[in-house]
Amino acid sequence: MGGNLEKRLEDYPRPSVTVDVVIFTLRDGELQVLLIRRKHPPFAGMWAIPGGFVGIDESLEEAALRELEEETGVTDVYLEQLYTFGALERDPRGRVITVAYFAVVPAHAIHPRAGDDAAEARWWSIYSLPPLAFDHADILAYALQRLRYKMEYTAVGFELLPETFTLSELQAAYEVVLGEKLDKRNFRRKILGAGVIEETGAYRTGEGRPAKLYRFREDAVAEVKARRLFP
Amino acid sequence: MGGNLEKRLEDYPRPSVTVDVVIFTLRDGELQVLLIRRKHPPFAGMWAIPGGFVGIDESLEEAALRELEEETGVTDVYLEQLYTFGALERDPRGRVITVAYFAVVPAHAIHPRAGDDAAEARWWSIYSLPPLAFDHADILAYALQRLRYKMEYTAVGFELLPETFTLSELQAAYEVVLGEKLDKRNFRRKILGAGVIEETGAYRTGEGRPAKLYRFREDAVAEVKARRLFP
Repeated sequence: MGGNLEKRLEDYPRPSVTVDVVIFTLRDGELQVLLIRRKHPPFAGMWAIPGGFVGIDESLEEAALRELEEETGVTDVYLEQLYTFGALERDPRGRVITVAYFAVVPAHAIHPRAGDDAAEARWWSIYSLPPLAFDHADILAYALQRLRYKMEYTAVGFELLPETFTLSELQAAYEVVLGEKLDKRNFRRKILGAGVIEETGAYRTGEGRPAKLYRFREDAVAEVKARRLFP
Repeated sequence: MGGNLEKRLEDYPRPSVTVDVVIFTLRDGELQVLLIRRKHPPFAGMWAIPGGFVGIDESLEEAALRELEEETGVTDVYLEQLYTFGALERDPRGRVITVAYFAVVPAHAIHPRAGDDAAEARWWSIYSLPPLAFDHADILAYALQRLRYKMEYTAVGFELLPETFTLSELQAAYEVVLGEKLDKRNFRRKILGAGVIEETGAYRTGEGRPAKLYRFREDAVAEVKARRLFP
């Protein structure tokens, strides 16, 4: 690659660049992910993460939001960049590098409808996924790993719970996302130690003992939001 | 983007894709970063993060390691993907998306020498950086933020310290990386609470009271290594 002063972009063979968008929600007591059924080859008829090619005149995040809206009708989500996947054989059409994004959204805010290159768009439980096109099973597995990691250390769960909640309700949401039963005492120690929730001062009354109501701390939520917007 | 069955990669204008590699070390009591001086336009003569175009037949990580070696002579580092930067105007030559990587290395293992498109290659203190080409100041700032975040929650510091160390030595390394003096009691509580170091059973003797020697936990180091290799 040495020497000449006038190297231009055209002198290098260029890969294609796509974006893919993993949208998680808590729905019907399950962790679910938004998938589309592909209308066109390659992998026509198969399910896939929504996504597509990056326009030459749009940023990566703009491309991700556009493709999400075109294929599923979903708007107004806050994306965080997940990882860029660039293995040589991941797309049968040739060299395609994909920048994956993810978001966690409240189910009631989202009403998928298929559009553009998508024949269908709907929620799937992460425990009963269809076969996925491309390397999308790997991308989804990595997104799930990231989500679970973030649940342990950040207030990312604020999208999944109502404004205020009891520790039992919070634990139930964590158990769904993490996919395992949690020990009540360990969970409470850990979540209170993480400093992402705080008492509201109010109680939920009803059957049994009144239960303290908690909320996510404003600064912890702000940190989650700042991180997904950066850079 | 609707309709036709036979869309090909050539039908879309393609951006160029580069990799950039941020290498940090602890050296002369400072946090330092490896930079190269550019031999060719754009930004000829300016300092930059090592990097270059991704070959059509190499993975992103292969490209990162190749460019790092070509420009600085540095080999045998374990890269972690940092972030993909795709703002429209970040490269004056046209649309260039860059996948940034970073690594933390022991200074004694690394002997930079300029090669290929680099006129010089050397360590710079992060507190007295030269003006940088492209958006490399932003990339470096983000890498620094990620490194500091990882120092708090992971065993990433294992590359920066000898096999065994006292808590005072560990605190000194953290203070250099974080760029601030730390309260001794808070530091000890936090680092011991994070579960990334453990006592060796041995003591450092000399002047003053013998000090317990610690090491990074094997499982915590394994987690750092696994994360940077994935996916």
